[in-house]
Amino acid sequence: MASNTFGRQLQLTTYGESHGIAIGGIIDGVPAGIQLDLEAIQLELDRRKPGQSAIVTQRKESDIVQFKSGIFEGKTTGMPIGFEIQNADQKSKDYGHIKEVFRPSHADFTYSKKYGERDYRGGGRSSARETANWVVAGALAKQIIPEISIAAYTFSVGELSITDRHKVDMNQIEKNPVRCPNAELAQEMETYIKQIRKEGDTIGGQVKCIINNVPIGLGDPIFEKLHANLAKAMMTINAVKGFEYGSGFSGTTLKGSQHNDEILTNETTKTNYSGGIQGGISNGMPIEFTVAFKPVATLMKAQSSIDESNKQVTVEGKGRHDPCVVPRAIPIVEAMAALVLADAFLINKTNR
Amino acid sequence: MASNTFGRQLQLTTYGESHGIAIGGIIDGVPAGIQLDLEAIQLELDRRKPGQSAIVTQRKESDIVQFKSGIFEGKTTGMPIGFEIQNADQKSKDYGHIKEVFRPSHADFTYSKKYGERDYRGGGRSSARETANWVVAGALAKQIIPEISIAAYTFSVGELSITDRHKVDMNQIEKNPVRCPNAELAQEMETYIKQIRKEGDTIGGQVKCIINNVPIGLGDPIFEKLHANLAKAMMTINAVKGFEYGSGFSGTTLKGSQHNDEILTNETTKTNYSGGIQGGISNGMPIEFTVAFKPVATLMKAQSSIDESNKQVTVEGKGRHDPCVVPRAIPIVEAMAALVLADAFLINKTNR
Amino acid sequence: MASNTFGRQLQLTTYGESHGIAIGGIIDGVPAGIQLDLEAIQLELDRRKPGQSAIVTQRKESDIVQFKSGIFEGKTTGMPIGFEIQNADQKSKDYGHIKEVFRPSHADFTYSKKYGERDYRGGGRSSARETANWVVAGALAKQIIPEISIAAYTFSVGELSITDRHKVDMNQIEKNPVRCPNAELAQEMETYIKQIRKEGDTIGGQVKCIINNVPIGLGDPIFEKLHANLAKAMMTINAVKGFEYGSGFSGTTLKGSQHNDEILTNETTKTNYSGGIQGGISNGMPIEFTVAFKPVATLMKAQSSIDESNKQVTVEGKGRHDPCVVPRAIPIVEAMAALVLADAFLINKTNR
Amino acid sequence: MASNTFGRQLQLTTYGESHGIAIGGIIDGVPAGIQLDLEAIQLELDRRKPGQSAIVTQRKESDIVQFKSGIFEGKTTGMPIGFEIQNADQKSKDYGHIKEVFRPSHADFTYSKKYGERDYRGGGRSSARETANWVVAGALAKQIIPEISIAAYTFSVGELSITDRHKVDMNQIEKNPVRCPNAELAQEMETYIKQIRKEGDTIGGQVKCIINNVPIGLGDPIFEKLHANLAKAMMTINAVKGFEYGSGFSGTTLKGSQHNDEILTNETTKTNYSGGIQGGISNGMPIEFTVAFKPVATLMKAQSSIDESNKQVTVEGKGRHDPCVVPRAIPIVEAMAALVLADAFLINKTNR
Repeated sequence: MASNTFGRQLQLTTYGESHGIAIGGIIDGVPAGIQLDLEAIQLELDRRKPGQSAIVTQRKESDIVQFKSGIFEGKTTGMPIGFEIQNADQKSKDYGHIKEVFRPSHADFTYSKKYGERDYRGGGRSSARETANWVVAGALAKQIIPEISIAAYTFSVGELSITDRHKVDMNQIEKNPVRCPNAELAQEMETYIKQIRKEGDTIGGQVKCIINNVPIGLGDPIFEKLHANLAKAMMTINAVKGFEYGSGFSGTTLKGSQHNDEILTNETTKTNYSGGIQGGISNGMPIEFTVAFKPVATLMKAQSSIDESNKQVTVEGKGRHDPCVVPRAIPIVEAMAALVLADAFLINKTNR
Repeated sequence: MASNTFGRQLQLTTYGESHGIAIGGIIDGVPAGIQLDLEAIQLELDRRKPGQSAIVTQRKESDIVQFKSGIFEGKTTGMPIGFEIQNADQKSKDYGHIKEVFRPSHADFTYSKKYGERDYRGGGRSSARETANWVVAGALAKQIIPEISIAAYTFSVGELSITDRHKVDMNQIEKNPVRCPNAELAQEMETYIKQIRKEGDTIGGQVKCIINNVPIGLGDPIFEKLHANLAKAMMTINAVKGFEYGSGFSGTTLKGSQHNDEILTNETTKTNYSGGIQGGISNGMPIEFTVAFKPVATLMKAQSSIDESNKQVTVEGKGRHDPCVVPRAIPIVEAMAALVLADAFLINKTNR
Repeated sequence: MASNTFGRQLQLTTYGESHGIAIGGIIDGVPAGIQLDLEAIQLELDRRKPGQSAIVTQRKESDIVQFKSGIFEGKTTGMPIGFEIQNADQKSKDYGHIKEVFRPSHADFTYSKKYGERDYRGGGRSSARETANWVVAGALAKQIIPEISIAAYTFSVGELSITDRHKVDMNQIEKNPVRCPNAELAQEMETYIKQIRKEGDTIGGQVKCIINNVPIGLGDPIFEKLHANLAKAMMTINAVKGFEYGSGFSGTTLKGSQHNDEILTNETTKTNYSGGIQGGISNGMPIEFTVAFKPVATLMKAQSSIDESNKQVTVEGKGRHDPCVVPRAIPIVEAMAALVLADAFLINKTNR
Repeated sequence: MASNTFGRQLQLTTYGESHGIAIGGIIDGVPAGIQLDLEAIQLELDRRKPGQSAIVTQRKESDIVQFKSGIFEGKTTGMPIGFEIQNADQKSKDYGHIKEVFRPSHADFTYSKKYGERDYRGGGRSSARETANWVVAGALAKQIIPEISIAAYTFSVGELSITDRHKVDMNQIEKNPVRCPNAELAQEMETYIKQIRKEGDTIGGQVKCIINNVPIGLGDPIFEKLHANLAKAMMTINAVKGFEYGSGFSGTTLKGSQHNDEILTNETTKTNYSGGIQGGISNGMPIEFTVAFKPVATLMKAQSSIDESNKQVTVEGKGRHDPCVVPRAIPIVEAMAALVLADAFLINKTNR
């Protein structure tokens, strides 16, 4: 069944495998008359690009987005916007060694069993290469809702986490390769990730996202709650294992009298345990959520696994992989959030 | 926009407010020829029912489900199954005191601002009364996938949590009002909830769900990953603030070499940090996830808030409310999980 | 797969069989704040009701619609509107004689083969009883777009057809049981239908529908063209075999120089061969279309057919059936048109 | 709102304007493991190509389809199939003369009013250029249902129509440029079309489509009837004004006793007024339908119209246009039919 479309009103449909000719997509439902800044979209794609620093994969992806339709004289026309990113650096020979092997904690085994067929080159469709499509669409979605600001950052890498004693300075985020809003902690994280890579190992981490200037009323009751759609969007990102918003898991230990957000006469709330959403609908306060990423599954060390005939084999990663996915995940988290918010924003026009 | 339909192939559409005539729904996409056990569905509804013990709300809901269509001579016909649950105990007079008031951390404020209109009686559509519809549909969905077993239980209430030192005995779950699989801890939780209620306060908690005998191959790549749909389903439940599966948030501190699940020659994995899902598709191992519930927002104590004209007011809950939502949430979590799994199961028939 | 939902933004989901307890539906996506005239909805339902005159079936259906939700203090709340029509006059004993028989040109054979199961009572779900649900939803949809007027009428019964020599007076439509806008022709049609019934036979006919005051811009490019959605809606009605709009089939014999609609400086067109729609989008001119209905399949005379074990049998209708479906189809055509237009109207709010 | 996706289970999403860089699409929901004949797809595209004979537009389109994903080692992988057709012969300068003009019976006026913006080059998105995308997807869809045969042909051009006295020989269809299954009539049609072109005029016509070897059970009750989806698909094709299946409009003059299809003990029917579909579901008999095409709106003669400031202007077509769209519409009708049938075929796997 079709499963490559995201969104209800603003719909992104994508295609493409890690080592095919190209990846790309179609963004449908964009209102007409929006003056697009295409350079800003390319810049978001550059933020996601591998090879930006010593702590991420050295795989080179040119990652130039080409738009094919739906834009005329710089403005959207209301027609679907086709786009493509060529896979410049395919090198599918790198993957011969995993052709018949199921790598641990990858999608090799499940794709093979589900479809009978599998494009084994670089994980095929299951590769995080697909997220480049999302970044393009998300960057465009941001331009539908220019008043809303969406900012994600690295909250933790392994045990290294922002705590109450760390100052969070959003201006620091893009100034260090880890994308942590505390320069000192960023330095510790970078050192740690380098050490992990030296071990041929990988490490998990958490991303926090804060969305400001959200109009009241985004999201719909019952099965299209704003936070439920954010959760689904985040869980869609490769390697994500958890999502929480507002008080999240720590809210489970609070009493109602501590947790309730008192509403003030200026229509803000005194606290924001609700994370900017009540009953599935934005209340105008900042939306805050956290996303948990597991350690990348591809290791530069030997692991035991099986092949397609269920024989035991040893696998070991080759090529160029991220020791920690979190720094590069920042623009992806923002992109997916932008898609959810722009979708809710457009839908909200029809509710009265 | 329409937002009251859940699922892709198996679709539940619902209606109804807390204090209207009735709530109900339509279950569409059920295959023909399934011999239904309607009593089993009613029993699930009974599990959710208020007033079952001293620790839940004493509001009485008769909660008898009546099926209207789609079943003939005991079997499904492939036609949509309409059902209804009458609201026997409406008592909308109870809610006059909140008519123009926005209760803290409820949906009153956001619904009012979004729609201009609001059915203030008992929270209207935003009330957890709606979850009775889901329990009916989920109980029916379980009968589409009888081989799969879905069991949820109370994992924590406030700080009282199952830890490594607690024996988990799934047979204990329905033997105590808290629905905790450890009898001793259940007793502590019950005592604690009673004390919370005496204070007029409420408390949060966590629910864990374990799904066994899942066929390999459920879930779809990219935007319909099985865990993403489970996340959305769980975040749809009233008062939920977080979701994690497999290693979840704690997995963020692990290294890949610790976290990867070694695949054995019998196609199982040695560990199950993946939580039964890889690349969005079930791998045959148990699916495990945890859901975080905030404390119920309705308190039996005075709180400051505002009314529709933004004047400061004091609100205080009246009537009958749950001091902790977790015990009654167990069948709801199971129902939503059943809907997601039955949907994925049916969709999977078309992939080859 | 789910197939009982109609519409994209305004969605009607229905359930119910001819001889079950009730039929009903859920209307989702209705904007908040619309003051509803519920009596007007019941009146539309009355227009469809059997037993209104000597030329339609004498089956008695009380057909009282009860609304369950989504309406508060007379106004829509933006929440889904559940409704139900009880099947007062079930008489399922009437249908024992067709239990194992496939009636010619009915859905008995195809439903049985597709599902293995079949509710044989009165055609079950395939019965035109379902259209009562559509009339309710369509009558409500009309109140979302009060400025648009939708009027259908009987254009032909068998060979008796409105021609250039017949004056069309829309005020005549509800004044005769045939619903023909020419009183004289209506009389001929009535006489003819009575004769057909005496023969135990049935006859086909055509319905024309004219929609005025349509705003420019309804409908969407490519796969959601306004006329394509009208076509689908009309072809959804039981017994419909054809649809044409504007110049329709007769337009195939015209030259472009005859057929093109010259655009005038007041933004109307000199002619209206386009039928009010260009490129799938309304141009503000009246929308005109015609719908072809086959003769009703149930005859009061013996016919040869087969039973479930493929043995030859003779079938003969019993009970109460329409000799010509067209007069009662008028409110159904209008209802389906209203659903399509209200849907397009709401969707159009998001295009800029 | 998104309106560029066709299908429920098998979904085609497209983009592209007449004079942009490229057009293309994504086919999602294709089952894994189908050995594709890509050459056969290109051949279908060649059948649609302009410039094939003296009676169609001389616009040259190279129309080479390139597949980007979802195919590995010649077989489908279950992943979305991206494809692109470059617009080789853009020549947008041809269209300067219509930049601010609304051509009669085109979509210029409605697109401008709806979106505020319009890509005026060659009709932009409203151009029949888009149908090349459908032919690619339809040709691929045919390979999902290889046992079903779909054949369309020219039934009439203006008043020149196949009648009872014409022998229909399906082998003749591709042997004449008109695609008429009667060689003699084809010659008359060709002569007539050439004359129409000499006049700078255009002419309408009808296409008939016959589908054989359809399995029993395709199509779904109520809102997804097979013929309703075929109707929508056909009405989606540019210039289509009407659709009928089985007895169609002529069935409206028949009595039930003439029209009912007697079911024989071999599960076929004696006649086929039902057109292969009963109750919205295929009954195994051939599906037959007819599609009405209006004359092409672009004329090589002067016409009166208005421009964007509502001033009266004279427009006259330039460049290369079809005097009759019917011959080139044949593969398009087949493609859209294939998409509907393959979709219904896949959906049918889930009904029991």
